[in-house]
Amino acid sequence: MKKTYTILFILLVAVSLNLPAQNKLFTADDYLNMDLHPKSINNLSWRGNQDVFTFIENNALLQRNAANPSKTDTIINLANLNKKLNDLNQKELTSFPNITWMDDNSFYFISQSVIFKYDCPAASLAKANKFDKDGENITIDSKTLRVAYTINNNLFVAIDGVTMQVTDEKNSNILSGQVPSRNEFGIDAGSYWSPDGKRLAFYRIDQSEVTDYPLVNIYDRIAQASPEKYPMAGMKSQKVELGIFNPDVNEIVYLQTNGPENQYLTSVTWDPACRFIYTGILNRDQNHLWMNKYDSGSGKFVKTLFEETNDRYVEPMHGLSFLKSDLSKFIWQSRRDGWNHLYLYNTEGLLLKQITTGQWEVTDLLGTDLHDRSVYYESTMESPVERHLYKTDIKTGKTEKITGTEGVHHTIAAPGMNFFIDVFSSPQMSRAYYVIDQKGTKLAVLSEDANPYKDYKTGEMSIFTIKANDGVTDLYCRLIKPVDFDPAKKYPSLVYVYGGPHAQMIEKSWTGGAGFWLNMMAQQGYVIFTLDNRGSANRGFEFESVIHRHVGDIEIADQMTGVKYLKSLSYVDTTRIGVDGWSYGGFMTVSLMLRNPGVFRVACAGGPVIDWKWYEVMYGERYMDTPMENPEGYKKASLLNYAGNLQGKLLIIHGTNDNTVVWQNSLAFLDECIRQGKQVDYFVYPGAVHNTAGRARVHMFNKITGYFNDYLKQTK
Amino acid sequence: MKKTYTILFILLVAVSLNLPAQNKLFTADDYLNMDLHPKSINNLSWRGNQDVFTFIENNALLQRNAANPSKTDTIINLANLNKKLNDLNQKELTSFPNITWMDDNSFYFISQSVIFKYDCPAASLAKANKFDKDGENITIDSKTLRVAYTINNNLFVAIDGVTMQVTDEKNSNILSGQVPSRNEFGIDAGSYWSPDGKRLAFYRIDQSEVTDYPLVNIYDRIAQASPEKYPMAGMKSQKVELGIFNPDVNEIVYLQTNGPENQYLTSVTWDPACRFIYTGILNRDQNHLWMNKYDSGSGKFVKTLFEETNDRYVEPMHGLSFLKSDLSKFIWQSRRDGWNHLYLYNTEGLLLKQITTGQWEVTDLLGTDLHDRSVYYESTMESPVERHLYKTDIKTGKTEKITGTEGVHHTIAAPGMNFFIDVFSSPQMSRAYYVIDQKGTKLAVLSEDANPYKDYKTGEMSIFTIKANDGVTDLYCRLIKPVDFDPAKKYPSLVYVYGGPHAQMIEKSWTGGAGFWLNMMAQQGYVIFTLDNRGSANRGFEFESVIHRHVGDIEIADQMTGVKYLKSLSYVDTTRIGVDGWSYGGFMTVSLMLRNPGVFRVACAGGPVIDWKWYEVMYGERYMDTPMENPEGYKKASLLNYAGNLQGKLLIIHGTNDNTVVWQNSLAFLDECIRQGKQVDYFVYPGAVHNTAGRARVHMFNKITGYFNDYLKQTK
Repeated sequence: MKKTYTILFILLVAVSLNLPAQNKLFTADDYLNMDLHPKSINNLSWRGNQDVFTFIENNALLQRNAANPSKTDTIINLANLNKKLNDLNQKELTSFPNITWMDDNSFYFISQSVIFKYDCPAASLAKANKFDKDGENITIDSKTLRVAYTINNNLFVAIDGVTMQVTDEKNSNILSGQVPSRNEFGIDAGSYWSPDGKRLAFYRIDQSEVTDYPLVNIYDRIAQASPEKYPMAGMKSQKVELGIFNPDVNEIVYLQTNGPENQYLTSVTWDPACRFIYTGILNRDQNHLWMNKYDSGSGKFVKTLFEETNDRYVEPMHGLSFLKSDLSKFIWQSRRDGWNHLYLYNTEGLLLKQITTGQWEVTDLLGTDLHDRSVYYESTMESPVERHLYKTDIKTGKTEKITGTEGVHHTIAAPGMNFFIDVFSSPQMSRAYYVIDQKGTKLAVLSEDANPYKDYKTGEMSIFTIKANDGVTDLYCRLIKPVDFDPAKKYPSLVYVYGGPHAQMIEKSWTGGAGFWLNMMAQQGYVIFTLDNRGSANRGFEFESVIHRHVGDIEIADQMTGVKYLKSLSYVDTTRIGVDGWSYGGFMTVSLMLRNPGVFRVACAGGPVIDWKWYEVMYGERYMDTPMENPEGYKKASLLNYAGNLQGKLLIIHGTNDNTVVWQNSLAFLDECIRQGKQVDYFVYPGAVHNTAGRARVHMFNKITGYFNDYLKQTK
Repeated sequence: MKKTYTILFILLVAVSLNLPAQNKLFTADDYLNMDLHPKSINNLSWRGNQDVFTFIENNALLQRNAANPSKTDTIINLANLNKKLNDLNQKELTSFPNITWMDDNSFYFISQSVIFKYDCPAASLAKANKFDKDGENITIDSKTLRVAYTINNNLFVAIDGVTMQVTDEKNSNILSGQVPSRNEFGIDAGSYWSPDGKRLAFYRIDQSEVTDYPLVNIYDRIAQASPEKYPMAGMKSQKVELGIFNPDVNEIVYLQTNGPENQYLTSVTWDPACRFIYTGILNRDQNHLWMNKYDSGSGKFVKTLFEETNDRYVEPMHGLSFLKSDLSKFIWQSRRDGWNHLYLYNTEGLLLKQITTGQWEVTDLLGTDLHDRSVYYESTMESPVERHLYKTDIKTGKTEKITGTEGVHHTIAAPGMNFFIDVFSSPQMSRAYYVIDQKGTKLAVLSEDANPYKDYKTGEMSIFTIKANDGVTDLYCRLIKPVDFDPAKKYPSLVYVYGGPHAQMIEKSWTGGAGFWLNMMAQQGYVIFTLDNRGSANRGFEFESVIHRHVGDIEIADQMTGVKYLKSLSYVDTTRIGVDGWSYGGFMTVSLMLRNPGVFRVACAGGPVIDWKWYEVMYGERYMDTPMENPEGYKKASLLNYAGNLQGKLLIIHGTNDNTVVWQNSLAFLDECIRQGKQVDYFVYPGAVHNTAGRARVHMFNKITGYFNDYLKQTK
């Protein structure tokens, strides 16, 4: 007996892209056709403190004044830039380089490890600094053009063309100036110039006790071992310190961050006056944060400004954002009330005010105006699947929504917050660039690319919610109908899943956030379905952190709620449902296949985590604690324990040099399938890391498409 | 227009296995069902110098007298053996151990690193010697029960329970007592006790200059690098020496085998009087052999007995086989006249006589009778696809064929050569054990297992020849028709190929030499075809060595001659031909698929050599010289150069720890396919070396069968 399914959803968006002359279909090769990607404007940025924005077009650096945006001036074009390079006996460029504004009148760019400074009023180019051609982890101070960089494990700085070696560590397991903690906690730099450019704060990472993962490079005459340090959950991890290098006296001072080994140093921020430096000390358990202040000259601990704790985890993702007019105050982003909000503190650690509040999240803090009256930020206030620009008056709390049109707005703010570039996407507009003012008034249209797929057939995309099995929680779904949709037919369908923290698959942007390949699969005749389950991002702390210590459980339950909905659709063939995902989505795909045997006929999982004990410390322990602390959780999530359930076709794909989800995961899973006599399919991308790119990605799209076409498309 | 194909073959055998009650079909799991394997007799051997043979049955060591073979005596059973072990305070055994006869009255066996000696007349068991439980590369002198063994890279001996450390080399790249040259040249031991048991000859291998191949062990908590020395064609190789250890004085003397580094030391043989030791010095080019005599006491070079050279290669595979009554003479096996034959030499190096001659090969030398009147050997004299036992009178050259029935006879000779155990197989008899005399008279039937497949459907198997494209050379073929064969139908067919030297796929033994899986595929409805191309074994030097410097060319031509024949068969669907092979057969499979695009719809290659530059020095350079010496040959054979030709479905399978054909081969091929946008399928067996076993093998049979069933069986 077929159960009647009560459809618990609100249709939010139902957009058909049926336009005339739509008749072509994608091939996987079209992925490399840039005409099918939304048109972008290159190197868009504001000029110093002016309300003037610049960008590169036709190999020239152009500018417009936000107050008079219809007029375009050329600052300099490639021919003239090359002439000046020639005069300096430097190699000419084949395209206009990306530039960074230093102030109102000067910008710099890098070519062949030389930093060139261009003075606009003087129209003069000069070599300002240079660094070693093998330099990595480059940090440039945009006022002084001092540069920090690493060679192998050591740190160097170059000042006015003169190189200083900051560290001379012979132990190659001690790294200076590199990104610690595997880029978790929002850390994306290994060193930080002080606001005055006079000193450099840098991470020192001792990974002597971290085990090597044995990667192999097959591209040498004889394959070579190419081990990488990979701290696995529960194992010895990095020990991190923060040094301050003062080039004037050629001395390093280390912050006195004494504490247990393996603690994390996050949110590194210089005091605008350069006297102090702030860092969040997060314990390895990731449930206790101390926001500490240190004397940047002596490295001495000054005080703990505040602490944050949580039974599940605390996840500092940002530095301190100092006000502009009052340098004794800063804005701190925290999810301490369950949602990412802004808090005003002073540098003594006094909480002055919670600036924003509500059941939505600040997704990007742009900063304050010059007088610190209002703070500007993007948020999910309107809807979890939209992004809008808001301003909140710090004193009154009065909040205004600046952007209007439904969709996803990402904004680049002019320094004074009077103007913004609004980079906009919606299901009806792949990408547009507008100049707007504080009221959201559109001052100029810089670019509008409504539909790069206009010559192609596309399926009807809709975004809606269904209720989770708690009867309360809204879960966002995206459905793309196959092209040439006939409601009387029964279609195979493909569930595309990610499901892990830090990511949201569905938003009201172009094709609802679905990528090229999902649209290609809709062209191949599949119903394409995606659901952002509990555990995914931008829905608040509870929604995302509910997976703590038992990843897989709730995510699967929610995805199965989605499948139940999918099966309720008259045009879905309930016997031909497939599932596909990569990384956490690979873990989800294999989990869905094995923990609900018989539901999915075909699955394809890329770079899947198979057992969280093989994932790294920083991300892994946040959600799962250590294998010793949470043996049951690890056991329940380990897909080795479900291999015996395998029914249907499962293709696993892995990059042989994946240093995020290491190869051991899928190889051990294959081993278990073999032991249990379960057929599973496999493919590897030699040399690929945690994903594929370029031609390999086209190959992979064909590989996965072929697999679904061979085993899911046919009714047989 | 369809060409008429002239069938150039002689039907040699056409055996139908259609017996009543045949109705079952194999599943891959049946591979592990021992009832489907020809029945064997365990530990069959002759007792000392007596015409008495012994074997293990029902956990007892039994014996029969060849002259009166109907009577069976029990020497000792497990219960009594365990009683005696118990008396010695030793652990009891769960099954009767394999034994080795020391003389007429005593045998020894090993249990838990202890060597036990059993005296039959006294019915007494004693601990005779012991060695370290971690000992490897064990060589036991069966008279003294002295034992040589290795731990890590060093060599030890144990004499009467006392251990001596022979080498104490700290450089782990210098190995003593281990097999050199990757087991090529018939070398299967790392040390050799002198006939009197007083001294030990052993190999010393310096592989310091050999590169590591980066194997990985995924079975640890964190995958571990597990590098193995793997000398690749053209690269630095092993340096080998021979030491003689004298335990009486605790001294090692090394043979003065001075010569270029990387030469090979083959055919190591002690003089029966222990004064000299012989070894063949083969240059790295493998085209010049010096058979040298050394003083075993001083290590000094005495003389070169003879030399062998060949434009292609010389391949010494055996030691010297000394006569029994005249210890100044020995038999040497050589292919110097184009076929493997026996030559009588004296120890001064004088060639006394070529004993055997003709366009056939001696395949196994059993030895001479006690008076050295006749030599006994197996050969292909009757037919390349049969093996029979022969005796040749050394003086007169008179040759007699001893075994009668058509098929394959392998014989275990009694010491005096008066009696033989004839282990026989033919298409009508899976395996039989007979006691025969010098006339071939069957004195007793020990076992006859006609057809272990009797409850199963099997396809009709035939062996025949077709002419190669030279119009002259006979190529042996084996064809198995699908079960329930209907000549009016069109069947898919599967070409199973090996194609490389040292092997012959087809012989007149049980199912023509086809294994379990090929018979299973005939049950699945495929025509199964195999051809032994030029380059394969037992057809003479010219036939096998014609591939020299251009592997792939002639082998493919011959296989395509086979395919042409196959296509001429009315019941073969010419659009549904598949090909399958492993190792050299994997190389052949991919070569056939890529160098004849469109001929094969589906291919499956296991552990394939993709480019011979990634194969090892010893085997690789014999056939291909080095990449520097033969760049054109390497280039033409490299399958990377044909990846762009790929049409149809190709599945490649590799063991992740394959230390014979290293993983780099198939990974690099995948990489090239990806680069060229060619779809290829892949599977790996984690931890597997150059083949799979047990449950993994069953899994692999299902994997390959499924692949052919998915893509070749359907006419669609």
